[in-house]
Amino acid sequence: MTSNTYYTAAQHGEFEVYELGDLVLEQGATLRGAQLAYTCYGKLNEQGDNAIVFPVMFSGTHSAMAPYVGEGLALDPSKYFIVIPNQLGGGLSSSPHNYAAPYQANYFPELTIGDDVRAQHQLLTHLGVTKLKLVTGWSMGAQQTYEWAVRYPDMVERAAPISGTAKTTPHCMLYVDVFCEALTSDPAWNNGRYDNSEDVEQGLRRMAHVFAMMGASQGLYNNALWQNVGFSSQQDFLKGLWENWFLPMDPNNLLCMAQKWRSGDVSLHTDGDLAAALGRISAKVFVISFEKDMFISPDDCLHEQQMIAGSELVSIPSAWGHFTMLGIAPEDFQMINDTLKKLLNTSV
Amino acid sequence: MTSNTYYTAAQHGEFEVYELGDLVLEQGATLRGAQLAYTCYGKLNEQGDNAIVFPVMFSGTHSAMAPYVGEGLALDPSKYFIVIPNQLGGGLSSSPHNYAAPYQANYFPELTIGDDVRAQHQLLTHLGVTKLKLVTGWSMGAQQTYEWAVRYPDMVERAAPISGTAKTTPHCMLYVDVFCEALTSDPAWNNGRYDNSEDVEQGLRRMAHVFAMMGASQGLYNNALWQNVGFSSQQDFLKGLWENWFLPMDPNNLLCMAQKWRSGDVSLHTDGDLAAALGRISAKVFVISFEKDMFISPDDCLHEQQMIAGSELVSIPSAWGHFTMLGIAPEDFQMINDTLKKLLNTSV
Repeated sequence: MTSNTYYTAAQHGEFEVYELGDLVLEQGATLRGAQLAYTCYGKLNEQGDNAIVFPVMFSGTHSAMAPYVGEGLALDPSKYFIVIPNQLGGGLSSSPHNYAAPYQANYFPELTIGDDVRAQHQLLTHLGVTKLKLVTGWSMGAQQTYEWAVRYPDMVERAAPISGTAKTTPHCMLYVDVFCEALTSDPAWNNGRYDNSEDVEQGLRRMAHVFAMMGASQGLYNNALWQNVGFSSQQDFLKGLWENWFLPMDPNNLLCMAQKWRSGDVSLHTDGDLAAALGRISAKVFVISFEKDMFISPDDCLHEQQMIAGSELVSIPSAWGHFTMLGIAPEDFQMINDTLKKLLNTSV
Repeated sequence: MTSNTYYTAAQHGEFEVYELGDLVLEQGATLRGAQLAYTCYGKLNEQGDNAIVFPVMFSGTHSAMAPYVGEGLALDPSKYFIVIPNQLGGGLSSSPHNYAAPYQANYFPELTIGDDVRAQHQLLTHLGVTKLKLVTGWSMGAQQTYEWAVRYPDMVERAAPISGTAKTTPHCMLYVDVFCEALTSDPAWNNGRYDNSEDVEQGLRRMAHVFAMMGASQGLYNNALWQNVGFSSQQDFLKGLWENWFLPMDPNNLLCMAQKWRSGDVSLHTDGDLAAALGRISAKVFVISFEKDMFISPDDCLHEQQMIAGSELVSIPSAWGHFTMLGIAPEDFQMINDTLKKLLNTSV
């Protein structure tokens, strides 16, 4: 267990911790005394059926998704009981950097998207939730969204996976490998046995550059659209946004999430038959795709959407590519919010 | 000067060497006793006006482009005198790995695309060439194509830059930085003072992965189109094509070319005014763009094509992305060849 002041309420806002007990993971290990960090907004009604789950992306916490929650927005806490669960391995829940021997640091067990969703289901059941009006999430949050809709079809009324896949694509696996190599090539990483995460600064900066290159479109850079959000040069944008994002994080946490991302696959429920897995979904689904996304191409989203009965594809053209979700351009935030609102207003 | 059996005629086919003498570089250094390696096909006519120049891409040699030359093809040696010049720094011409002290290895001077084109112009003048029916090249070859058309407008009748830019885009600079970091992060690189290039194997493999990720489209991987060309798995494709390509190369040569790629900019001729530089072109220009290219997006090609009077844009939709040029899919080769033939048949 190493200390890292980044993974605190001071950095991410207050959160609750649910004691999962001994969580038997899909890959076989048992995470004893596992903890799930989460935040809630709004009130659960008597029937327990006004809940929304909004899981988070790679390297993110509840705080990254919180801007989408607010009165008058789609995710309106005056109407819904909204839960943002943090990922296992994400730094606030049980994670490599905060877990005890013998499973600490690089010995933390392999996780699956299914482990996250099972843990979240345990929490929601404990809270009295019976139905989910909506599950939505971005990127790894979309992976969890698909997992929810496939694993608990009777509970999920609507689902909006945003720029993420039910089954990680081969190209996306290569992407994960490339950014992990950028990180682990730092000799200071030392097979995960660094003393302080800051020692791995060079690897974290390199990883940030890979994210920057793939995370926003060519047009974002070539038209210097970083100017619109207060950066003075491309160099300033790389440092001020991308390096600044990853530098305070724990490399083992990042690698744990990356491995989970890479292995995401709802077809594990159906002996590898993706169409059969997606065929289990009874929720009304809006698949939200970002046109300029290099992590998850529009074709990847379309491919899966076509296997989901009654689903719709919504395509958003922003130059921010995969990072359209951050809503840095107000029109992007608006389109995503409007899409979620429309889905919530669709009767099921 | 280090030995590397990769940079030999045994590996790349026979080639000629032109003695450039003392080449004063645009950045100020003098490359004394500079050599330009090249191959020729066909015969120069009496007037010296049936020549074609076909410069090569990053990490390539004349052998990579040779398949586009042949009787019945656009680049037909029974009609044209075709010269394929190797890049300075590319390993066969004067390069970090083969140059003498004090400019050897990582002390090799910075090159520009203009240096290549000036050296090529010196060669062609020596050979008696007066007019170029066509200049064409892919990627860094396209950079040289633009430089030819801007620098020597009276000599260049037609130009076909293929998936490359007249001015390197900011996103492409980031791409170059990312793959250079993948290479130089290897401690064995040792600031360019390795004993043998094979010592930098890990960095070369990592760099190959970055190229693989950005060089072909998501769809190439996600539809396992590597099966069409004899690979048994994605892993086999990464090793058999991409790692195999870069592993025998010299890291300092690659970094020398990368720096030249990054700094490519025809607007240096016109005080930074790109439209003015492209306005100097009198050649008939076909800009060839690859729709799924992540190095050079179709928008990047369009942006420059629109600044060239009388030019046309030809878009090729292959899943091979930037590496469409390799013609691994026969229809890609055919479309590129047909486009060059059409341009050669256009009167100017």
